[in-house]
Amino acid sequence: MPVETIKWEHGRVKYIDQTMLPNFFVEHLTDDYLVIAEAIRELQVRGAPAIGIAAAFGVVLGAQKTFCKTLGEWTSLIDHIIDELAQTRPTAVNLFWALNRMKNVLHADHPSIDKAQKALFNEAMQIMNEDKRICREMGNNGAVLIQDGATILTHCNAGALATADYGTALGVIYAAKEQGKTIHVYADETRPLLQGARLTAWELMQNEIDVTLICDNMAASVMRQGKIDAIFVGADRIARNGDTANKIGTYNLAILAKYHSIPMYIVAPLSTVDLEIMSGKDIPIEERAAIEVIAGFGKRTAPENVHVYNPAFDVTPHDLITAIITEREVIYPPYDGKLIKLKKIS
Amino acid sequence: MPVETIKWEHGRVKYIDQTMLPNFFVEHLTDDYLVIAEAIRELQVRGAPAIGIAAAFGVVLGAQKTFCKTLGEWTSLIDHIIDELAQTRPTAVNLFWALNRMKNVLHADHPSIDKAQKALFNEAMQIMNEDKRICREMGNNGAVLIQDGATILTHCNAGALATADYGTALGVIYAAKEQGKTIHVYADETRPLLQGARLTAWELMQNEIDVTLICDNMAASVMRQGKIDAIFVGADRIARNGDTANKIGTYNLAILAKYHSIPMYIVAPLSTVDLEIMSGKDIPIEERAAIEVIAGFGKRTAPENVHVYNPAFDVTPHDLITAIITEREVIYPPYDGKLIKLKKIS
Repeated sequence: MPVETIKWEHGRVKYIDQTMLPNFFVEHLTDDYLVIAEAIRELQVRGAPAIGIAAAFGVVLGAQKTFCKTLGEWTSLIDHIIDELAQTRPTAVNLFWALNRMKNVLHADHPSIDKAQKALFNEAMQIMNEDKRICREMGNNGAVLIQDGATILTHCNAGALATADYGTALGVIYAAKEQGKTIHVYADETRPLLQGARLTAWELMQNEIDVTLICDNMAASVMRQGKIDAIFVGADRIARNGDTANKIGTYNLAILAKYHSIPMYIVAPLSTVDLEIMSGKDIPIEERAAIEVIAGFGKRTAPENVHVYNPAFDVTPHDLITAIITEREVIYPPYDGKLIKLKKIS
Repeated sequence: MPVETIKWEHGRVKYIDQTMLPNFFVEHLTDDYLVIAEAIRELQVRGAPAIGIAAAFGVVLGAQKTFCKTLGEWTSLIDHIIDELAQTRPTAVNLFWALNRMKNVLHADHPSIDKAQKALFNEAMQIMNEDKRICREMGNNGAVLIQDGATILTHCNAGALATADYGTALGVIYAAKEQGKTIHVYADETRPLLQGARLTAWELMQNEIDVTLICDNMAASVMRQGKIDAIFVGADRIARNGDTANKIGTYNLAILAKYHSIPMYIVAPLSTVDLEIMSGKDIPIEERAAIEVIAGFGKRTAPENVHVYNPAFDVTPHDLITAIITEREVIYPPYDGKLIKLKKIS
């Protein structure tokens, strides 16, 4: 049973504060959508699918604490809450996808505020439950690509902590393990926020999967030594042509993988595919504060006032991606028409 | 005038403790060769040329505090000190090169211990003064490769803090600046020990060169945006065929540079060339303690007992190197015969 990153409990949302891992396992309980917004902004909840689920629950929390005389007035207040939640982070499309689903439900024909609240709650639960099922489907689709005894390199955290179930990229590894395969993992520490060191290493150790931590700049050296059989990572937004935004450093890895002839797999639900975006150059890339780079660990490690460039994501062009593993099927290049087709029937 | 990383002062060695930068500028003064050995081991003094100079001065300190009745007995005690200093770090060949020079002087025909001590002192001073001159020659040879307005990416610290003068890779940038060119630098922070963030950013800011700090995994993204005109890095050991060991992550950069058609320059004195080593696969690569990766910033950032792989260096194969800039000339591929020829006449 994977760790429960986010759940609904007696009218409240309970979530793991991922900024405290691995030193402290802290869960927060809240009935306040603004706490959820802050949790997303500050990466207490992170990972594209988990952000979508948290935002959907945020709408439910806002809806159950908003009281009005008329449904129309109430609906416009909830619209405002949805807009606020949409401002939290710009890159992961699952946030907007989930909030759009909530907005569509909000604007359906409800007989009363009470019924509308109930419908929003049901939609959020459905988003979460779908994500659980989808994780398993991606895991099974991807696991066939992993041989017994294989060594996988992963980046950031695309595991249980990023989803409602056992993850996207790490889900594939967990599924392979459930099939009886022995898997070794190298985890990039993933600067600046060390999601690989803090979250992926922790999560894999919890699940008794052999993991070796490396700094991001050691990946090429490890590949050169022939230690890596495949790379599996998640995604924050996939453009129509297959270009994929994911945690900063993923594009690095994709180039290194190509150079060393190692397959590079993206694992993501179809909710991460954004058909409105034609190619990677149109994906908005979040830039975060310098402090994450120069003093991220309780100690200043760079000079005062140094200029810092701190993009949270990069875009891997589709021609560096061996395949995209979705809940429906494993898609091989060319991606263009296939993503459109799968997305439309999903 | 560049910062003086290491110097001889009234019979003692004074050196900057680089582990304290940029928060504190601390210099240590010692007459004890074991303090020098520890300073090299703990990276208080680092950078291939600076390690060689520090070790040579370490021999002088040991020699001036060792007293014996006979020159023969004294010589064998100093031999032992040289062997101890050679154990400090395995990869940078400048350490062994400098200690070999000291050993040759030690075993020359001296009339007395006093004269032998004086000869060792003179040799160490000569190693340091040669390095000062060589830095300037490399700087001038490399600066012609940099256009006015160029943006350079560098990794680790190959500047004044790594040498007796203004550095190898950074020396080229300083020389270009002295020629009136405006240069912008992106500095990889260089995990795990953050020499880029702590030392290169500090040093460039001291010298009023515009520098932007990035995490190592952001380099590909910056290159993709067309921001980088060339990469300049130092070296710790260059094999006969041009394969080059340098700070971990250099090989990463070289692959990314090739993919983005950006020139990749190594800047190193001929003392870094090791003709005994045929190719990179024979260069010994130092592996350092896990603690540097999992708790390097005063706070634990990975689970207890996680496996860590922490190589301090990687090897960039010669076919990814655009040119090697030495004090004699800029060498273009094929390197093999040219390195032998230059090394033999140097």
